[in-house]
Amino acid sequence: LTTKLTLEAVKLIEGKNFAHLATISSDGSPHVAPVWIDHDGDVILINTAMGRIKQKNTTKNPRVSISIVDQNNPYARVTIKGKVTQQTKQGADAHIDKLAKKYTGSDKYQNRQPGEQRVILRIEPLRVLSSP
Amino acid sequence: LTTKLTLEAVKLIEGKNFAHLATISSDGSPHVAPVWIDHDGDVILINTAMGRIKQKNTTKNPRVSISIVDQNNPYARVTIKGKVTQQTKQGADAHIDKLAKKYTGSDKYQNRQPGEQRVILRIEPLRVLSSP
Repeated sequence: LTTKLTLEAVKLIEGKNFAHLATISSDGSPHVAPVWIDHDGDVILINTAMGRIKQKNTTKNPRVSISIVDQNNPYARVTIKGKVTQQTKQGADAHIDKLAKKYTGSDKYQNRQPGEQRVILRIEPLRVLSSP
Repeated sequence: LTTKLTLEAVKLIEGKNFAHLATISSDGSPHVAPVWIDHDGDVILINTAMGRIKQKNTTKNPRVSISIVDQNNPYARVTIKGKVTQQTKQGADAHIDKLAKKYTGSDKYQNRQPGEQRVILRIEPLRVLSSP
């Protein structure tokens, strides 16, 4: 049932636009947080660290919803429903540096915490909606 | 258990910043959408229309999570967990005009759909978190 990303979604992801990731917390309430975002073909990539709410929530319940808004036009946006199909630590350190470069211009991610283990959430889209 | 809004939250709400509202859909998956936002003291106000996903979802499950990011500094932000304690149609038409004025400069909301009934979701905060 996996769906393709639309050209508009790819354009918003490849721009320096922030996304918002919604997940379900263990008490059943929704959680939402701003995130950096990337893609690998039709798979969305979000980089977090082991033990963070996003990582824990999607381990228990892989369903997510993502909203991406064009920073230069808040009425151009895309919403993606999907599921985390894999969490991968391999390449996650290099990947957060790549995202830091994209979003901040730094060659290295500046907010690494002692002992943190980065992890990439690989998200397969189930529905991609462009908002009017 | 209701919590007060922080000064930082109020400042972000009163600025022209967009918020993201996460709710739980009837199939248990999360839903997230960009929204205009307002407050009445410590109560957060989001204006939607009857029958929209946000309105239907919070009728079934009142738990929400809201993220507000400063449009001029994406690293200044606030996350609020809360619940919809009331949905009120009274004053909702005037209120969407007030929000249109704040966000677009128009005296009237320009996107009214034929037959739509506006409704204000009144949200009581349970937790207010300022992000580093």
